[in-house]
Amino acid sequence: MTDPTATRAWPHPDVVADLAALRAASPLTHCITNVVVSNVTANVLLATGASPAMVHAPEEAGVLAGVAGGLLINLGTVTAEQGEAARVAVAAANAAGVPWVLDPVAVGPLPWRTALALELLESRPAVIRANPSEVLALDGGAGGRGVDATTGPEAAVEAGRALAARPGAVVAISGPVDHVVTGDDVVTVPGGDELLTRVTGTGCALGALVAAFLAVAPDPARAAVAAHAVMAVAAERASSGSRGPGSFAVGLVDELSRLETTPH
Amino acid sequence: MTDPTATRAWPHPDVVADLAALRAASPLTHCITNVVVSNVTANVLLATGASPAMVHAPEEAGVLAGVAGGLLINLGTVTAEQGEAARVAVAAANAAGVPWVLDPVAVGPLPWRTALALELLESRPAVIRANPSEVLALDGGAGGRGVDATTGPEAAVEAGRALAARPGAVVAISGPVDHVVTGDDVVTVPGGDELLTRVTGTGCALGALVAAFLAVAPDPARAAVAAHAVMAVAAERASSGSRGPGSFAVGLVDELSRLETTPH
Amino acid sequence: MTDPTATRAWPHPDVVADLAALRAASPLTHCITNVVVSNVTANVLLATGASPAMVHAPEEAGVLAGVAGGLLINLGTVTAEQGEAARVAVAAANAAGVPWVLDPVAVGPLPWRTALALELLESRPAVIRANPSEVLALDGGAGGRGVDATTGPEAAVEAGRALAARPGAVVAISGPVDHVVTGDDVVTVPGGDELLTRVTGTGCALGALVAAFLAVAPDPARAAVAAHAVMAVAAERASSGSRGPGSFAVGLVDELSRLETTPH
Repeated sequence: MTDPTATRAWPHPDVVADLAALRAASPLTHCITNVVVSNVTANVLLATGASPAMVHAPEEAGVLAGVAGGLLINLGTVTAEQGEAARVAVAAANAAGVPWVLDPVAVGPLPWRTALALELLESRPAVIRANPSEVLALDGGAGGRGVDATTGPEAAVEAGRALAARPGAVVAISGPVDHVVTGDDVVTVPGGDELLTRVTGTGCALGALVAAFLAVAPDPARAAVAAHAVMAVAAERASSGSRGPGSFAVGLVDELSRLETTPH
Repeated sequence: MTDPTATRAWPHPDVVADLAALRAASPLTHCITNVVVSNVTANVLLATGASPAMVHAPEEAGVLAGVAGGLLINLGTVTAEQGEAARVAVAAANAAGVPWVLDPVAVGPLPWRTALALELLESRPAVIRANPSEVLALDGGAGGRGVDATTGPEAAVEAGRALAARPGAVVAISGPVDHVVTGDDVVTVPGGDELLTRVTGTGCALGALVAAFLAVAPDPARAAVAAHAVMAVAAERASSGSRGPGSFAVGLVDELSRLETTPH
Repeated sequence: MTDPTATRAWPHPDVVADLAALRAASPLTHCITNVVVSNVTANVLLATGASPAMVHAPEEAGVLAGVAGGLLINLGTVTAEQGEAARVAVAAANAAGVPWVLDPVAVGPLPWRTALALELLESRPAVIRANPSEVLALDGGAGGRGVDATTGPEAAVEAGRALAARPGAVVAISGPVDHVVTGDDVVTVPGGDELLTRVTGTGCALGALVAAFLAVAPDPARAAVAAHAVMAVAAERASSGSRGPGSFAVGLVDELSRLETTPH
């Protein structure tokens, strides 16, 4: 493992190429996500260029997951039935070679979903997208040092490294600067805007965007970086024209649709 | 049956009268619909002048459906429980003479919901609202030629005619030009905007709008035409003032509320 | 009991202090609410300064409710499972001394949810937030005069007084002028805008805002007044810049985030 502070510059040319590929392929992105954010998630995917599909009945989640370009499992308002749909979808995705993202919303303080997240983790998501406390909780629950033992973004990156090493996943950690952590590398994605934290679902939609980019990017780390960079740039542009979180949310979707795929 | 290419001009005066009737009656419109679009569906109904009510517990869906002006069954994120609520609501609506709309989202590739849609079809919706591939799938599942045998809008209209003839329903097919198909007639509704396809839920909300117009229009075909025409005109107006799909979605709701009911 | 027409002026200085306290504490506000409004509810809470959390699995709703600053139970699209989550959350909230709000959406015409609302009422919410017909239905179902016996805002205030007296709750009644009713007092909150009735979820989000203010205000009546006053002022400001309900909804969230907490 390299030094956790090691970073490289934002790979802007790759992001542009990956965004162009996303728009060309318009990958079917299967989202099993929470009721609070399902609308904004679909609109973020559509604006960026992907094709969202939200199907969460256990009877058919596997059929869709098996033919999707990417799959998102977000535990925000998970119920027993939706947990079962997640299991079915993940199994079908893995059988078909469809990459998937785990967004373990609020794991840590809530033991029931934490157990579900740890179970799903065994099925090897391509990317885990989470905030720092969720990464710490997941690492702790998976045998790491846990929430109470550590604080700060450095600790989250360190926990992310440990987490990434075990199932072989990329761990994308949201924050004022986003960190995309693999077993031996850390890519930082700067930018974004504080207003992203004042609108519900921007982080959840980002998880869906990672799933969409997994369908077109050459590897999971690059998919995660592309999604985070796209969201960061659109957020910066939307912020300048907004009066508050309401108009920011509208502008964010507009700006995602307007991102240019030619170098500038 | 007449030639499938037969059409008549958009009956603008009827639409204006039906919209005025909708606003005067503000019909209670019961929507059993998917979690992604329930918010935009309610807002589209409110902006146009109807009274939305989303109730989907099997224990009480029938009570509401029996007193509604119109009912929508949309299968977007259907679960076993919501499917049961749909059965209960449809039975109550039929018993009370309340007209209802079936929006068979994503039937075809997903066998479980396709079976449910075909079962509901037996209970004779007044209107089936769908995109071309869903119409083809529904016709195929009901004994027609099926998805693989046909392509293009003409094929969907032809499948819609066959589908319309069997349960006696009106089949409204979305596209760059919408087609409202009865057993022996096809009405086209031009207009709209490509941005409608970049915002989630506009088609689903259109299904709800058909259900609302069923409560006030003299027949199902006219209800379907009114709903599609209202959405098309509002979309055109919203498009001109928008920067992308985010502001378009906001403008669409504004414009629905501003549609004039006096000739112009 | 005093005369039901007794009112006092809008306690503006208290509202400003309570809003400042809300923003300082950013109370965790647990919402078990309906799928139509969960997004706007979260965004209203975030814009005003609270921290929303929507968790509605019975397996974990109690864990969150026990550590929240305030809890909302909204019955808009309640199912059997969500009803069970409500029971669990209310029990945990009461055990931990967390105040909670009951929003009995559509009680009266729908017997199943009315029975659930009456059952929850026994667990003593701090505030009941409802429209006039829901207050009448709840009072009727709890042994009062019922819906059919009474009409008009005065009747709802009278029913609210009776309802408030029994479980000791504050009853907040929405309308062109809002009434916050305790056993022996009525506070009116004027203002707001007719557009609030043209956007889905503004009333439901108001219930969540009451739950958030319960975490910081010195008593439930003051929390209810603060929430209603904050919504009314933001709505007035949003209305002036809007073209219809779409832009009004966006502006409402913006204005909530811009409310000043210094006297003006």
